[in-house]
Amino acid sequence: IALSGLPKGKMTENGMASRGKVLTIDTMNPTVKKVEYAVRGPIVQRAVQLEKELREGAKKPFAEVIKANIGDAHAMGQQPITFFRQVLALCSYPELLNDSTFPEDAKSRARRILQSCGGSSIGAYSASQGIDCVRQDVARYIEQRDGGIPCDPDNIYLTTGASDGIVTMLKLLVCGEGKSRTGVMISIPQYPLYSAALAELGAVQINYYLNEEKCWSLDISELQRALDEARRHCNPRALCIINPGNPTGQVQSRQCIEDVIRFAAKERLLLMADEVYQDNVYADGCKFHSFKKVLFEMGPEFSNNVELASFHSTSKCYMGECGFRGGYMEIINMDAEVKAQLTKLVSVRLCPPVPGQALMDLVVNCPQPGEPSYNNFMKERTATLGVLAEKAKLTEQILNTVPGISCNPVQGAMYSFPRITIPEKAIREAKEKGQAPDMLYCMKLLEETGICLVPGSGFGQKEGTYHFRMTILPATDKLKILLSKVKEFHQKFTQQYS
Amino acid sequence: IALSGLPKGKMTENGMASRGKVLTIDTMNPTVKKVEYAVRGPIVQRAVQLEKELREGAKKPFAEVIKANIGDAHAMGQQPITFFRQVLALCSYPELLNDSTFPEDAKSRARRILQSCGGSSIGAYSASQGIDCVRQDVARYIEQRDGGIPCDPDNIYLTTGASDGIVTMLKLLVCGEGKSRTGVMISIPQYPLYSAALAELGAVQINYYLNEEKCWSLDISELQRALDEARRHCNPRALCIINPGNPTGQVQSRQCIEDVIRFAAKERLLLMADEVYQDNVYADGCKFHSFKKVLFEMGPEFSNNVELASFHSTSKCYMGECGFRGGYMEIINMDAEVKAQLTKLVSVRLCPPVPGQALMDLVVNCPQPGEPSYNNFMKERTATLGVLAEKAKLTEQILNTVPGISCNPVQGAMYSFPRITIPEKAIREAKEKGQAPDMLYCMKLLEETGICLVPGSGFGQKEGTYHFRMTILPATDKLKILLSKVKEFHQKFTQQYS
Repeated sequence: IALSGLPKGKMTENGMASRGKVLTIDTMNPTVKKVEYAVRGPIVQRAVQLEKELREGAKKPFAEVIKANIGDAHAMGQQPITFFRQVLALCSYPELLNDSTFPEDAKSRARRILQSCGGSSIGAYSASQGIDCVRQDVARYIEQRDGGIPCDPDNIYLTTGASDGIVTMLKLLVCGEGKSRTGVMISIPQYPLYSAALAELGAVQINYYLNEEKCWSLDISELQRALDEARRHCNPRALCIINPGNPTGQVQSRQCIEDVIRFAAKERLLLMADEVYQDNVYADGCKFHSFKKVLFEMGPEFSNNVELASFHSTSKCYMGECGFRGGYMEIINMDAEVKAQLTKLVSVRLCPPVPGQALMDLVVNCPQPGEPSYNNFMKERTATLGVLAEKAKLTEQILNTVPGISCNPVQGAMYSFPRITIPEKAIREAKEKGQAPDMLYCMKLLEETGICLVPGSGFGQKEGTYHFRMTILPATDKLKILLSKVKEFHQKFTQQYS
Repeated sequence: IALSGLPKGKMTENGMASRGKVLTIDTMNPTVKKVEYAVRGPIVQRAVQLEKELREGAKKPFAEVIKANIGDAHAMGQQPITFFRQVLALCSYPELLNDSTFPEDAKSRARRILQSCGGSSIGAYSASQGIDCVRQDVARYIEQRDGGIPCDPDNIYLTTGASDGIVTMLKLLVCGEGKSRTGVMISIPQYPLYSAALAELGAVQINYYLNEEKCWSLDISELQRALDEARRHCNPRALCIINPGNPTGQVQSRQCIEDVIRFAAKERLLLMADEVYQDNVYADGCKFHSFKKVLFEMGPEFSNNVELASFHSTSKCYMGECGFRGGYMEIINMDAEVKAQLTKLVSVRLCPPVPGQALMDLVVNCPQPGEPSYNNFMKERTATLGVLAEKAKLTEQILNTVPGISCNPVQGAMYSFPRITIPEKAIREAKEKGQAPDMLYCMKLLEETGICLVPGSGFGQKEGTYHFRMTILPATDKLKILLSKVKEFHQKFTQQYS
């Protein structure tokens, strides 16, 4: 074994080392190995394999695989917004601007986007921070959303989906060694992009637990506990919040957000607010409050000081346009020198995909009353959100009829995260296999019913509790079948292991 | 000062720390600070500012800023391929499949892409590795390009532009500390994505110099020199090649590629072949040879052993569709466990932008003889590449008429990288300002003529030599004006500092 850790090869006649690959599991970047991403993990790989087997004529106890593992709205049958797609077609093939069947407001949006592209083509690179006019539109949208609180387009960075923005912010932040290593607070359960990014960056993940008994609410005392413990072994510098919650579906109250901001201010933490589900709020009495708005309503002592990055995306809400990888982040109170570094950093990847930027523009600059597409746009938007609200209710109700499953209200976002009781015997079997008990559960569910869910262990959960994440996205009829199959499976599973 | 390096804040009445931002230039990730990306660096920022000043009516010695700093074909007036944009419009707004003005082959391509998308929508996530049918088409394209050498679609990963693939490969590879830290060999001059990614990952950059006197050719003896030196202080594990060259425009001979492969095999280096300019070959007697093809022609001792990743993109060649961020990489002889890690790693970012994947598909599955769009497609493709060849020649010829500028033939890619003589007095002035001499030169050129080039120092160059990179993309008339302005400026600059 050489100093470098690579096995030395023998020389063959022509002087080539017999190898021994350069890159092996033992010689690759160890931080990459630590990365986990359950939403596309082993269970999903098995689901893809099962689909293939079905196509090849294999006999299974089910006719199709239903993927309720990922918030992929269009894949589950949600229809794109007509107006958005018309404008995207116009931008892609500007000859269509002469086609009289396209509405005038779609044409004027397309013209405006094209005019701000190099050579009037969405095939040109944009500025790395994003197209100017799109950033201006985003800023105006945020101002309207937040009741007039000003938003500077210079603080808007367009991104390749929200994930890209989140990883970029973490990248700026993470440094130090040993006890000075940057720690980042994330909720448990969490969306595994966070744990994956922190593992890759070698940051310290600081878990704070959401309170399942109080509808996955966030208690400041729990933030304090987690922070105080973490301070003994790392340097906590940021607090990540997902609101509405993923995978847990809760919507934070205004009061809770204010408390979180106070906590961040007191403890000197940069706030990262993942607000990609901001239009996905279903429950009576729940309302989306942006961290930005609450921060500014708390007065200048807070609004001039607390560092906040908030993230949005074209992938969720009523749009569901995941494939376009559109998104933006707004940064508030960022140090000017750091901002320059951020701008430099994003320039290395040249620019976010321009079709995604165009789509983001349409989301923040959608048809207005009086415009020809307004009525149809509102009809489609309202219908999509209405159906999601129905399915959120339905999911909660049906799951709660199953003994051994208990499900908090799905107040927002696109997921239920019910708690499941797993019999001791099943837990033992899983542990013998070196598997998480809810992985065993979900894997059996998949093999027996074709339903693909993600085990709670992929998101994190309190020791000794078990969950799964299920999207509410399948069409209502399919969702009902899915839920009744889950019910049946759960009963059978419980019997089998009793 | 606290252990963590953060200044401790005072407490105000309400218990909030008076700050002291969490994130400052002193407390941010130091590896990010080391990142540099000249192609969008200070000179480009100044160009953007000048454009703004012009729009606002400022008087300048020029009427417009000409950005010849970046390979952004559409921004410089290159027209998109009609067929590609028709299919993209059809994919964006499938209602158009009923429109009789679209050709049938465009419709069949769109149908095929849509059928392989979740919910038949390009708004759905794809598999993280990319859409199956696109990867199959890429594999078939590579087989045809390489004279039938087999290509497994499982070895194809679609990417967010080539940059994404390159960074991902480097991320897998870089590890170790001190003398075991991974070193990566890159050409000097280089495309600064490489140095930026290596800085961000904290890898050791190993420079090997291209031979300007021999038309930027690659000498194996220079590779050996660089490697031997580097082995004293790091663990060299990969060798990056850009062919055709960026910024230097050379096209590697088959023999040279074979020698590089032998070298990599002998020295146990993973090869990374950046082949995004594979259709941009202009010079008589030059031909693009893929590393894959040469590797397999060298026989099983090499083709079964040498680890190779090669990269392609929708952004260059005759397409120039930078904004879509489409690309792919092919990996050869990658260890199976490492490949599983790669697949996991890319899953965290969900998927490359689907419109970019669709576009990549069209590039590798373009209209064939007998299809309705074939003639027009070939006409457009040939015209675009023909004009680029003309401009490559023109650029070299005109620059070589200027005393003090010498320019190698632009055999391929989209750039000239001429050497410029800078008078001693100017060098001293630059050094006093703490500026690279060619930065001083390019900055003055910009201020006086509105022409935006990138100084050679942004790409790396032999100590004591100076260059700039200029794209050959401006329209022929504009390119002539630009070149004559550069000529005039160079003469003036030389006089001024003599």
